[in-house]
Amino acid sequence: MQTLEKIHPKLQELKTSLTEINDLESAAALLYWDQATYMPDGGTAARGRQMATLRQIAHTKFTDPAIGQLLEDLRDYEASLPYDSDKASLIRVTRHDYQRAVKIPPSFTAKFSYHSAECYEAWAKARPANNFAAVQPYLEKTLELSREMANFFPGYEHIADPLIEDADYGMKAKSVRALFAQLRAALVPIVDAIASQPLVDASVLHSSFPEAEQIAFSLKVIKQLGYDFQRGRQDKTLHPFMTKFSIGDVRITTRVKENDLNEGLFSTIHETGHALYEQGINREFEATPLATGTSSGVHESQSRLWENFVGRSRNFWQFFYPQLQAVFPSQLGNVSLDKFYRAINKVERSLIRTDADEVTYNLHVMIRFDLELQLLEGSLAVRDLPEAWNERYRSDLGIILPNDTDGVLQDVHWYGGMIGGMFQGYTLGNVMSAQFFAAAVKANPEIPSQIEKGDFNTLHNWLKENIYQHGRKYTAAELIERVTGGVLSIDPFINYIQRKYGELYAL
Amino acid sequence: MQTLEKIHPKLQELKTSLTEINDLESAAALLYWDQATYMPDGGTAARGRQMATLRQIAHTKFTDPAIGQLLEDLRDYEASLPYDSDKASLIRVTRHDYQRAVKIPPSFTAKFSYHSAECYEAWAKARPANNFAAVQPYLEKTLELSREMANFFPGYEHIADPLIEDADYGMKAKSVRALFAQLRAALVPIVDAIASQPLVDASVLHSSFPEAEQIAFSLKVIKQLGYDFQRGRQDKTLHPFMTKFSIGDVRITTRVKENDLNEGLFSTIHETGHALYEQGINREFEATPLATGTSSGVHESQSRLWENFVGRSRNFWQFFYPQLQAVFPSQLGNVSLDKFYRAINKVERSLIRTDADEVTYNLHVMIRFDLELQLLEGSLAVRDLPEAWNERYRSDLGIILPNDTDGVLQDVHWYGGMIGGMFQGYTLGNVMSAQFFAAAVKANPEIPSQIEKGDFNTLHNWLKENIYQHGRKYTAAELIERVTGGVLSIDPFINYIQRKYGELYAL
Repeated sequence: MQTLEKIHPKLQELKTSLTEINDLESAAALLYWDQATYMPDGGTAARGRQMATLRQIAHTKFTDPAIGQLLEDLRDYEASLPYDSDKASLIRVTRHDYQRAVKIPPSFTAKFSYHSAECYEAWAKARPANNFAAVQPYLEKTLELSREMANFFPGYEHIADPLIEDADYGMKAKSVRALFAQLRAALVPIVDAIASQPLVDASVLHSSFPEAEQIAFSLKVIKQLGYDFQRGRQDKTLHPFMTKFSIGDVRITTRVKENDLNEGLFSTIHETGHALYEQGINREFEATPLATGTSSGVHESQSRLWENFVGRSRNFWQFFYPQLQAVFPSQLGNVSLDKFYRAINKVERSLIRTDADEVTYNLHVMIRFDLELQLLEGSLAVRDLPEAWNERYRSDLGIILPNDTDGVLQDVHWYGGMIGGMFQGYTLGNVMSAQFFAAAVKANPEIPSQIEKGDFNTLHNWLKENIYQHGRKYTAAELIERVTGGVLSIDPFINYIQRKYGELYAL
Repeated sequence: MQTLEKIHPKLQELKTSLTEINDLESAAALLYWDQATYMPDGGTAARGRQMATLRQIAHTKFTDPAIGQLLEDLRDYEASLPYDSDKASLIRVTRHDYQRAVKIPPSFTAKFSYHSAECYEAWAKARPANNFAAVQPYLEKTLELSREMANFFPGYEHIADPLIEDADYGMKAKSVRALFAQLRAALVPIVDAIASQPLVDASVLHSSFPEAEQIAFSLKVIKQLGYDFQRGRQDKTLHPFMTKFSIGDVRITTRVKENDLNEGLFSTIHETGHALYEQGINREFEATPLATGTSSGVHESQSRLWENFVGRSRNFWQFFYPQLQAVFPSQLGNVSLDKFYRAINKVERSLIRTDADEVTYNLHVMIRFDLELQLLEGSLAVRDLPEAWNERYRSDLGIILPNDTDGVLQDVHWYGGMIGGMFQGYTLGNVMSAQFFAAAVKANPEIPSQIEKGDFNTLHNWLKENIYQHGRKYTAAELIERVTGGVLSIDPFINYIQRKYGELYAL
């Protein structure tokens, strides 16, 4: 895709169409961003319709047989190019998406988009009211639509497979289950060992931290991590997310709790990790299907790498903690770095996935993943979901849930999207983040000591070079193979947890 | 369009298509709003392309022969309905737009959208640099495209007519010229008489007014005027504007100067006037061509009515001035209402249209209107435009311009849009605002005394009832006829100016 090189006319034609489709999708993303940040309530009804319209037009344009014909016409050309050339990759990835998209009728896209907006609205009211029954009929419809979606891809082994593959290409219910079983077997003894010790006192994070100071500090941190504010910005929202309107405009959103320093700071670093990935994509890929992260898991690996391997490390706070103390002298002036470091890495069997520590987090994900599969299989009815949820929290985490608000209603995913394929990426991301970080440090052993000096360039550049720039050129498996020479493995993650928490809890 | 009534299937089909087109246009409007408020610089290149893409798709969909066929199929049905029924109006207005749109090739729409974005960028750099030469080639291209646009509508009397008619249906170069000549003849003696008196001292408006307090006060004012914040919001921008994404989401933007109280306050009331119009449209018209103001002039009549007839009236400040003094006690505590009222209504031959007072404002507009016509006719070349501009400011306003920044480069219109049809609406709006306000007060003589008490409901309701709710159902001429029983006339405006400024300047 070098611009000076002569480009195959059919490829040029394809790129022109893809740009138009991308522009529609980017506009739909902006409609969503605006709804989540600034839109007045009165805009709600029209906004849902507008997003559905743009997505349906984008889908119709992408599934136009003329696109299929161009992809056919480009087969010989593609075969003449190296597999990992930009051009061959663009054709290959576009064909992958096309073959999937043509199986989904445009009317389904619009119907699903409408339903999601309705279900989300119902959930947004039901959650604070602790009223699962109010959202149950919507969720039943979501399940029905999720099954309908899966059934556009017959021949699957498990009905969740088409949904999992859409988010994490190469993974299936079976392979995820196997990986999760390994991970559970390794994690549970660590969680048990920590649970037998007294709880860490994290009260230093829960005094009062004014919002404006928290935000200013977070912005300073992520600027130093390498987030480019010429090509992004941060705004407040209810449920933080990262979104992209072009490689030159990658935004993050945040929320802040004045009585919880964890919330704003680490969610900001988390979303920044997603954003660094998108900002680092080869700009030649702009407005094509190559211009995004390659899978849900790899994307999450970057948010978690920056949030946990960097942001929750002792090295990181050796640099930043004096600055944080200077911002909050009365709250933290007398709190030692060690006490603070222990507080931000407190391990606790808790209610809420997004607040969970690194050790228990994946157990929360596994509960959701298993329940998704049962719902899709039909072995669990939506009406029985709260009970099943509560039972798993009791058996897996030893927690008795006080209500559905902080139970089955806590995560937006099922209520604003599909049932199926929504959760495995979180744990795949944690696993991969350890593999990628280990590879970066192996290649550049000076990274930890640089982090201690507030220098993130070597790490950031290594990630850009090895992961970010490629966008969707390589699958997750290809990327892991290129970067680590091996396959997806839980070992680096478990080693990391054992080392870090072994020290923290003297295991 | 009552929802319970059975709707003609062809009309339903038409409405479905119109909604889709409206959704694309609303998304394009959001892309623009975001660019003008929050977008980081890095987003610029893609954003121009995204807006062009959405507009081209909207144009292509609207000019689809299927729309023409539906409109043909609906002719008998339309004829069976009363002219001013919602359904007949929807068919009539859509046909009007369709017949115009099909004459413009979609490729032109995209080409023009791209060029506008480029020309705007060039202007944004050229203006602060006082460098007309840098933007001249872009403006020459704009002129060429504006002529091309006009020539899609052959048979005109003056080449500007198709462009004027697009903004102000029913008006042509000839009729605007005739009206402007009348207005000039009436205004110039008043301007001369005021100019022979000492300048009013308006320095009380130019001490230091912190931005946050100015914004808070403005928001309080427009809330009381009736702006619905459930269906709108205000954000900061460089060049204030009003925009709409649905009848439930009508936004305004503002800018504030700490050393000029006029700037933020009156531009906020001005944009609120536009917004009250759009918020007041019959919600049954949502997402159809009926759901917007009926012409550039009528739209401007509403911004100017609220800005000038309300916001610059003595009655208005009898209510609000004590509140403003309470916000700025050190700046205004010792300034009398009379002194303040004189300051905000200071008449002065000045450089900048947007800062001009009510008396001289239209002279600024006439200069631009005449120059537009000359450029389109070919009797003035773009390279000679700065000289022609300066000469007119000297002859019409007695002003020697210090530079092009505050001269020919001051207004965005030609640099971000067409040459032709851009300016007449401002003066038509001033003229109409006086007609409408006089009609409202004639129907409800208590309005001025209500304004004095901070009560704007009677006026607002009268405007909703007589103007806002109708959207584009009636043309400007039809609306004036319905509201005043007569035709467009400068008399109420001149009477208003003579009365208000006669008293202020003891003429």
